[in-house]
Amino acid sequence: MHRTYSMRQSRAPTASQIQNPPPPSSSTKGGRLFGKANIGHTFRKSVHPGAFGPDLAKKLSQLVKMEKNVMRSMELVGRERMEVAQQLSIWGEGCDDDVSDVTDKLGVLIYEIGELEDQFVDRYDQYRVTMKSIRNIEASVQPSRDRKQKITDQIAQLKYKEPNSPKIVVLEQELVRAEAESLVAEAQLSNITREKLKAAFTYQFDALREHSEKLAIIAGYGKHLLELVDDTPVTPGETRNAYDGYEASKAIIQDCEDALTNWVEQNAAVKPSLSTRARTLSQRRRNKAQGVDLADQDQDRESGLWVSADQHAGQEYEEDESVRGRDEERAVAA
Amino acid sequence: MHRTYSMRQSRAPTASQIQNPPPPSSSTKGGRLFGKANIGHTFRKSVHPGAFGPDLAKKLSQLVKMEKNVMRSMELVGRERMEVAQQLSIWGEGCDDDVSDVTDKLGVLIYEIGELEDQFVDRYDQYRVTMKSIRNIEASVQPSRDRKQKITDQIAQLKYKEPNSPKIVVLEQELVRAEAESLVAEAQLSNITREKLKAAFTYQFDALREHSEKLAIIAGYGKHLLELVDDTPVTPGETRNAYDGYEASKAIIQDCEDALTNWVEQNAAVKPSLSTRARTLSQRRRNKAQGVDLADQDQDRESGLWVSADQHAGQEYEEDESVRGRDEERAVAA
Repeated sequence: MHRTYSMRQSRAPTASQIQNPPPPSSSTKGGRLFGKANIGHTFRKSVHPGAFGPDLAKKLSQLVKMEKNVMRSMELVGRERMEVAQQLSIWGEGCDDDVSDVTDKLGVLIYEIGELEDQFVDRYDQYRVTMKSIRNIEASVQPSRDRKQKITDQIAQLKYKEPNSPKIVVLEQELVRAEAESLVAEAQLSNITREKLKAAFTYQFDALREHSEKLAIIAGYGKHLLELVDDTPVTPGETRNAYDGYEASKAIIQDCEDALTNWVEQNAAVKPSLSTRARTLSQRRRNKAQGVDLADQDQDRESGLWVSADQHAGQEYEEDESVRGRDEERAVAA
Repeated sequence: MHRTYSMRQSRAPTASQIQNPPPPSSSTKGGRLFGKANIGHTFRKSVHPGAFGPDLAKKLSQLVKMEKNVMRSMELVGRERMEVAQQLSIWGEGCDDDVSDVTDKLGVLIYEIGELEDQFVDRYDQYRVTMKSIRNIEASVQPSRDRKQKITDQIAQLKYKEPNSPKIVVLEQELVRAEAESLVAEAQLSNITREKLKAAFTYQFDALREHSEKLAIIAGYGKHLLELVDDTPVTPGETRNAYDGYEASKAIIQDCEDALTNWVEQNAAVKPSLSTRARTLSQRRRNKAQGVDLADQDQDRESGLWVSADQHAGQEYEEDESVRGRDEERAVAA
């Protein structure tokens, strides 16, 4: 493994951190009873490490399960965000007109963030389900590996015990068939893993990009809203100018809604460009890959040995659905 | 309240949803035992609705508490994200070279998302603490309101029972003093609420913008990484070309790290612009506000009646810190 960039120990502060030094660690972070890890998940993880799946699929089973935890937590954040938005508006209602109007509109924006978070969870699930289909092909390849191994062992044993047994020939024929089956299975595994890995992370990153850009849009309009609050200090007994920003705040919300509604991937504002070095390195690889003559492959594929990924869609096993939901745990706690 | 945009019932699909119809609702969302709400939070909310704070500060106390829940949940997402990143890398390690390298690098990017989520929580806490300072001034204004009311009641009672009592004059003098104190308190409330509200949401939106843009950057580089996976289908028995993308994947990670390190607010890519209408409406308001003669205010402020917001910093009351942490609840459940 090339983990040069997985194991970075410490880092230089970013340009933005130098501009705005980060605040101290949040007050929710101290004083955990059982260290940093979350009890519920740790417990669940140690009891079901893909306990029922075949060896090959164990690690990915675990990942798929952990992703479900991530989704549940993201869902919770979205739900709590919407509650917070409502409470902000409720608080503001009792304040002066300007604070009342602006907090209500801020509530609208924050509620929108909650809704976007909810939509993001749905799209994240597509990523998870696609990774799960890799797990399924991994699980289905295991038996053909096992079978090949078993026949090989039987032949070796027989050759040692009864070198002249006629069963050896039968087993050797069986082994040839098992090897052929295994070759197909391994090719399927190789093809489907790559196809699905790309598809899964394309889902995740496309969803993440849309979600992030929309949140950045909301943050921008939120700052416009704040300008409507009249924060000129008043002296005791002085009354503030009457608030007349209702039209302006509504127009800002409408602008924001339009910007969100019209967002499409093609107009994404954040466009991470590769350095010349990275582009050259990536390009070199791609050219090489395209130089390979693929004619034979297509021919072989039509021979029927190759099975397209779609045909594996039904082979799901659902042991991870039986894991107790977080909400049920909470019910026990309450 | 102008809730035209708080109560929108249904909406037209966005341009992006038309392009990519949203997936069905995620599988984690069904079958809750106790409906949509989260048990732990609902319980806590109903028991402590700002139970010990003065009336005026109740709603904001509640908001500050709910924000702590949001922070805990966001923290959990970040922690789980980092675990997922590690598991992805662990799974990939057993695969072919290209899948192994790319999943490890994807793990690096996703771990980075988790770290950014953690940093975002710290900055979100600044927002929360600033809102809390509004709650504190609200709580401190309540006694002066109560005192004024109490004296007014006493005078009314006395005038009815003993119209000639000499105590009436004493109480009336006391009322004048209480009214003066109350005027100052109300002006402080008015000024500090606006100052802190703006500061709090400026923290939140600035943090959100930085966080979102950085996530969008990561999503972009993630998609570049995926291109390194060779997904040309192989036929049974065929071996794949040797992977030589190590340099390219490392260069992509370095590019991504540089982009994140160099991100500053001034270079934010998402720039939500106001429509002419919204800009005109906002501008009109601001001009009007600036037209007011502020000379008298400054004079009065120097008379010493006005207290700057900083001087209230110490008046915090911490009843919401005693709320049981979520992790302890989990410990009970486990």
